[in-house]
Amino acid sequence: MDASVVEVPAVVARRGRPGYDQRQILAVAVDLFNEQGYDATSVAAIAEKLRLAKSALYHHFNSKEEILRLALDEALIGLESTLRDSLAADVSGGERLTLVLRGAVTVLVERLPYVTLLLRVRGNSDVERAALERRRAFDHELIGIVRAAQVEGSIRGDIDAGVASRLLFGMVNSIVEWYRPTGKQGLNDLVEQVITVALQGLRVAPGSPPASRE
Amino acid sequence: MDASVVEVPAVVARRGRPGYDQRQILAVAVDLFNEQGYDATSVAAIAEKLRLAKSALYHHFNSKEEILRLALDEALIGLESTLRDSLAADVSGGERLTLVLRGAVTVLVERLPYVTLLLRVRGNSDVERAALERRRAFDHELIGIVRAAQVEGSIRGDIDAGVASRLLFGMVNSIVEWYRPTGKQGLNDLVEQVITVALQGLRVAPGSPPASRE
Repeated sequence: MDASVVEVPAVVARRGRPGYDQRQILAVAVDLFNEQGYDATSVAAIAEKLRLAKSALYHHFNSKEEILRLALDEALIGLESTLRDSLAADVSGGERLTLVLRGAVTVLVERLPYVTLLLRVRGNSDVERAALERRRAFDHELIGIVRAAQVEGSIRGDIDAGVASRLLFGMVNSIVEWYRPTGKQGLNDLVEQVITVALQGLRVAPGSPPASRE
Repeated sequence: MDASVVEVPAVVARRGRPGYDQRQILAVAVDLFNEQGYDATSVAAIAEKLRLAKSALYHHFNSKEEILRLALDEALIGLESTLRDSLAADVSGGERLTLVLRGAVTVLVERLPYVTLLLRVRGNSDVERAALERRRAFDHELIGIVRAAQVEGSIRGDIDAGVASRLLFGMVNSIVEWYRPTGKQGLNDLVEQVITVALQGLRVAPGSPPASRE
């Protein structure tokens, strides 16, 4: 307490810089949104966490809703660009499904807090409703990819494409609930495990040895 | 507005009954919690929805937190009893995994609003933390079941049991996000589709015909 009067705030200490850039502020705000909920997080709380004046924050953003919009964009643009690349690739339907799964898992892990925020959006404002609309468009394209792979014969056709697609992405999206970048699973391992479970299931692969006891 | 003075509340209209029983109140409260969030839902709002006085509500429950506890119990007891039955069954490890998956999907669908509430709990109070603790204990037992099936050789052993278990339940839990009891998928169909994707994956089953175009 008594030492705080001489403590130099981190922002001031960085000479020659205006403090935080928009991306850094966004990262801090998204962590707060995920921890305590968007509605319960005030602009004042974000400013306090950054040790900035509210007016300095408003230099970067017009409103809390604009912060939310940019944060959701971060997740959505990543997922949409994965989808676009997969659709543009000159590959079979089955390979396209693998591409989009691989890309989505990568985006989820690399933009974990942003996708976590996106997956919790319930449509309480125009910004949230626009985000849900883009998620729906993504899901719709995904069902098309699953369906094309079924018609081509690359994946089984006896499960409704909508159900298959939702189960796959239920699995993929659950990653935000339990994956921690500090965990022992590297991103590449995780991607391959998801692809394996998605396409081959847990049934024993022909010729593979059983697991050891330890 | 002007007709409201002669309107007979539904509760009063049921002669010889005290109005709602505890289960019915619970169902209405859980729907409100899921729609607008637990924190944002007041006891007054629950009473209003039921057209009850707050005092009548307190005849059934001591507090809003008690309603939450009973609602979460509804989900947890279902899942825990599925787990207990699976562990007690005299079957192979692989069959035990199928049993617990089948049971969990059934509980999810049959107690959809309660499990939805459970899956959104973040640990903001003693009641929520106790529920999270029971979820963790469930997850721990589940990893044991996956691991035993791997050691036995019923399912592939080249994927970490923790990752496999979380991917499986990510898929299962996602059902609360998209399954609607009025949908065309009957419960039995859904259960079998989940088991199929979980154990066999989407790869084409040997000898099966490709999907038709429509």
